[in-house]
Amino acid sequence: MKSLTEHLTFETPTRVAFVNITPQVESLVTKSGVQEGLCLVNAMHITASVYINDNEDGLLGDYEKWLEGLAPHGPVERYAHNSGTGEDNTDAHMKRQVMGREVVVAITGNKLDFGPWEQIFYGEFDGRRKKRVLVKIIGE
Amino acid sequence: MKSLTEHLTFETPTRVAFVNITPQVESLVTKSGVQEGLCLVNAMHITASVYINDNEDGLLGDYEKWLEGLAPHGPVERYAHNSGTGEDNTDAHMKRQVMGREVVVAITGNKLDFGPWEQIFYGEFDGRRKKRVLVKIIGE
Amino acid sequence: MKSLTEHLTFETPTRVAFVNITPQVESLVTKSGVQEGLCLVNAMHITASVYINDNEDGLLGDYEKWLEGLAPHGPVERYAHNSGTGEDNTDAHMKRQVMGREVVVAITGNKLDFGPWEQIFYGEFDGRRKKRVLVKIIGE
Repeated sequence: MKSLTEHLTFETPTRVAFVNITPQVESLVTKSGVQEGLCLVNAMHITASVYINDNEDGLLGDYEKWLEGLAPHGPVERYAHNSGTGEDNTDAHMKRQVMGREVVVAITGNKLDFGPWEQIFYGEFDGRRKKRVLVKIIGE
Repeated sequence: MKSLTEHLTFETPTRVAFVNITPQVESLVTKSGVQEGLCLVNAMHITASVYINDNEDGLLGDYEKWLEGLAPHGPVERYAHNSGTGEDNTDAHMKRQVMGREVVVAITGNKLDFGPWEQIFYGEFDGRRKKRVLVKIIGE
Repeated sequence: MKSLTEHLTFETPTRVAFVNITPQVESLVTKSGVQEGLCLVNAMHITASVYINDNEDGLLGDYEKWLEGLAPHGPVERYAHNSGTGEDNTDAHMKRQVMGREVVVAITGNKLDFGPWEQIFYGEFDGRRKKRVLVKIIGE
């Protein structure tokens, strides 16, 4: 069995941001030499997501508005987590649950085994500071 | 390490549909010969889900109504993705995030290692066209 | 390839509950002897979740209120699943979808490869009866 462990780092200039990380993950699959296996990509922070969907700007804006409707950022004092910790990111802990922490992608013939429109995104909901994503590949 | 890669295909007659795919996945586990391992089942399209829950008709109807409340199909022009692309499926990209892209199921003794009511479903949110699901099995 | 299959059991005194299961999962990783691999942790019941987020009491209360807003428990007769089966747990089938069924965690150097605040939680949405979680570890 082969394995590879690598990190991607982010520091987005805005609180909410979506970053297409497909090229970086593809490079790591090549580097791993794994022909058949699984590729786990997960946020290492609990106010961010890794998810797979469309690389289309209109959709990214729609996601931001939709998530704000499901889990509003403010008023900050509506959330016990904010009051108790002095933070203002409770909504980010919720948005991350809707979008998910991780994706597991099949590797077939040393490539991400993807449908036509699948792209891996890093979803940031509490940015403007350093965050990391873990890529773990196992297989043969 | 053994591996198996197969596809399931769908073309549902309705825009929204839920299809129990547990028997097909179980057959592929048998075929793989994997005794101990992991089975990844994922939608290859970004307006569909694979998820695990109950095979009960009332619940499937409840899910459809609930998801429509969380991410309404219309009015179509409320979404930038629809306006920008001429499509009408932005809500499907959202419903798919709530229900999830993939499941990872343990294989124990060459069987899906399931609790009493776990069933694997394909959730379609923009049907009436060809879609695929990937099944990837790795283990020994 | 090594593998390990174990179960955790729960019977929470309340309908909704969140239980930090990180120490138990860590012990199983040690026991498995797997240095590099993947650890799948999933609810075996379809009204419960396994998810990764913060171990902070305020947030757990915020999650409970937020999920109740997204998928209210009552009135019980609003859901076809309740009317058809005589159960009252349709909302639990929905809350579980928002929070997720499973997590897949990388194992690096025989440890859960976690960011600073990642903790694994069992999320119960229809408790006061016996439930199980599956831990499956594969790797080398």
